[in-house]
Amino acid sequence: MANGTIEELGRRAVHSARALAVATTATKDTALRLCADLLEQRAGEILAANTVDVGRAEREEAGDTALDRLRLTEARLAAMAAGLRQVAVLPDPVGEVVEGSIRPNGLRVERVRVPLGVVGIIYENRPNVTSDAAGLCLKAGNATLLRGSSGALESNRAIVGALRDGVSKAGLPADALSLVEDVSREAAVQFMKLEAIDCLVPRGGHSLLDSVREHATVPVVIDGDGNCHVYVDASADLDQALEIVMNAKTQRPGVCNAAETLLVHGAVAEGFLPRAGRALGDAGVELVGDERARALVPGMGEANDEDYATEFLGLKLAVAVVDDLDEAMAHIARFGSGHSEAILTTDVRSAERFCREVDAAAVLVNTSTRFVDGGELGLGAEIGISTQKLHARGPMGLRELTCVKYVVRGDGQVRR
Amino acid sequence: MANGTIEELGRRAVHSARALAVATTATKDTALRLCADLLEQRAGEILAANTVDVGRAEREEAGDTALDRLRLTEARLAAMAAGLRQVAVLPDPVGEVVEGSIRPNGLRVERVRVPLGVVGIIYENRPNVTSDAAGLCLKAGNATLLRGSSGALESNRAIVGALRDGVSKAGLPADALSLVEDVSREAAVQFMKLEAIDCLVPRGGHSLLDSVREHATVPVVIDGDGNCHVYVDASADLDQALEIVMNAKTQRPGVCNAAETLLVHGAVAEGFLPRAGRALGDAGVELVGDERARALVPGMGEANDEDYATEFLGLKLAVAVVDDLDEAMAHIARFGSGHSEAILTTDVRSAERFCREVDAAAVLVNTSTRFVDGGELGLGAEIGISTQKLHARGPMGLRELTCVKYVVRGDGQVRR
Repeated sequence: MANGTIEELGRRAVHSARALAVATTATKDTALRLCADLLEQRAGEILAANTVDVGRAEREEAGDTALDRLRLTEARLAAMAAGLRQVAVLPDPVGEVVEGSIRPNGLRVERVRVPLGVVGIIYENRPNVTSDAAGLCLKAGNATLLRGSSGALESNRAIVGALRDGVSKAGLPADALSLVEDVSREAAVQFMKLEAIDCLVPRGGHSLLDSVREHATVPVVIDGDGNCHVYVDASADLDQALEIVMNAKTQRPGVCNAAETLLVHGAVAEGFLPRAGRALGDAGVELVGDERARALVPGMGEANDEDYATEFLGLKLAVAVVDDLDEAMAHIARFGSGHSEAILTTDVRSAERFCREVDAAAVLVNTSTRFVDGGELGLGAEIGISTQKLHARGPMGLRELTCVKYVVRGDGQVRR
Repeated sequence: MANGTIEELGRRAVHSARALAVATTATKDTALRLCADLLEQRAGEILAANTVDVGRAEREEAGDTALDRLRLTEARLAAMAAGLRQVAVLPDPVGEVVEGSIRPNGLRVERVRVPLGVVGIIYENRPNVTSDAAGLCLKAGNATLLRGSSGALESNRAIVGALRDGVSKAGLPADALSLVEDVSREAAVQFMKLEAIDCLVPRGGHSLLDSVREHATVPVVIDGDGNCHVYVDASADLDQALEIVMNAKTQRPGVCNAAETLLVHGAVAEGFLPRAGRALGDAGVELVGDERARALVPGMGEANDEDYATEFLGLKLAVAVVDDLDEAMAHIARFGSGHSEAILTTDVRSAERFCREVDAAAVLVNTSTRFVDGGELGLGAEIGISTQKLHARGPMGLRELTCVKYVVRGDGQVRR
């Protein structure tokens, strides 16, 4: 291990977190801009390090997706730098007085937004996560411990080196940001149990999330699956519905807020499904459905429960015809992952029932699930989309990287 | 097991949670009042059941504290009923629009408060927790799974029977509230891993909390230790300080927001500690301190690091003299449990630095740590005081038993 034991990195992060917590917004923004500059200035060095990682991955015959995620280019580095500069212009969540009141005995009670302290990020091969996550954590006043994968170690080391120098140049402790360079499985488990971490955010696939669920003893926010549904109600505007379904499925099928199942009310199935089937087929989407859907769309495959439970993350869509709103909501309750669920309807009662009764991070009416994203919902940037209920639900922006403390001011009040 | 497997109780709770989530405030309040009435009407039955539990505890030679916690009386039952009626008049957190805005593309985005779903409570021998916790969870629209200890099983069964009947009479599903009657250790661990539970709240001592930390895989909010400090700054109003220190230590020494350590600035130690030592001694408080404190208070014992780290929960206080605010804050950072920390000062800079830099659920200026309590801070009632940072920090009231979902309304918007 090159840079200290995990416990030692944890101690240094805790120590740095105190300086970060009281740093002014101006200082943090300066640090973010210096980090962005250094990423660009050291592009040659960072890309050379990345070439080492990519070369090893190629020798190990990694798949195209894995290689694409790992590979950095001038353009991707520029996007990382732009991301940091974007975070610098977002409002600082720290210090926000969330609420305040005066108690009958004269005590002034405020709830004030403060940093979490130390945020741990454990992630897979995408080196851009290194700067994206670090930038958001820094702006929210947190120290960050990063634990990337072995496959991206050289890239991460180069990126973190630049970021630490940027932080340091702004007068903040470099240890506000550290990379755990021990990439063994044992170190990953140790990381998930490190007491110094106030909040652990895993970014990656199922095996990482399962490992976190099994081993983590520190508080975690899970960026879970998105098995998202679009339900076309009996009263839907079918032209609008077609456009929304196409958008939710095909605009970017590989992401968590893309639609994976289309539910159609029986009363409009005949008028909608053949059209939708053609349009989706033309866009290269493979369709699987229940008996009633298959009767309306030639060439549609048979869907089983596993299909309805699957986040395809690609050009495949499960389809079911339902008798009414209740059946649609029951399907969503059974198979949904609590991410984003949309109803397309012109009936105000259907819309309101769907919004109230569907249990998910986001419910949408007459629009695409693709909007469930930090940028689109006005959070500026996000570190992930939480599908858990505690602390953060939906896109996690700067505010979700903070907590709140009570500040109580009196003048001698005692409790009777 | 008398009432179904834990998994089955979980399934029924999940099912009931859907009805609870859309129940009107009026229905929930009616249920709470019916529950209160039934607790009173069935006092004979409940007290008889409690007598069985107390008898067994006496035969097993339980200590006085344990017996006192377990024992119910007419007065305690009346207090439980009054608690439920109090919750009925609190504002309903469900449906609160936390924030809302219109995006540039016309999407209307709201964050709306909704119930968590199923709340699990695992607790020790105090049967009043059964109705207190159930009442708060019900008002917040959650189904509740209760897992009390073996020692209070008969009492809990009688109480939960009355509450289920009250809920049912109001037209809500009785399974909104269930008691896990399997009181084995295995069942406790199974409970901590039950997927049906959206939030687990443990109420009890260290061994329970340690077990939850070790075994729980469901999200948890920990009601942790309160190793609270009062720091008397150089500029403190010493008369006021004496009154606050006495209140923080002696008004109710057995609770988590009582003070456990007194820190005194060296400049006022001579003027304050001898007086404080006499007053505390007269109130029966045992004092232990560092060398400088002992030199000023005759008869003060010697304090070691373990004393400074201990939540005495009784009439004992650790004392230290510090050279300045920084040393006081360093002591708190080292030994504090992140619960409630007070500074007594007339210096605005000291007050502001303390509020910003001390990392705790609550920081207080010129008032007693005893005010860190749901009722005193205006939350109405609380289910515990969280010392963790995620989700809930400080007193957990009705709002902390909910989460937020995004509701996004459009008219055909798609993402480009």
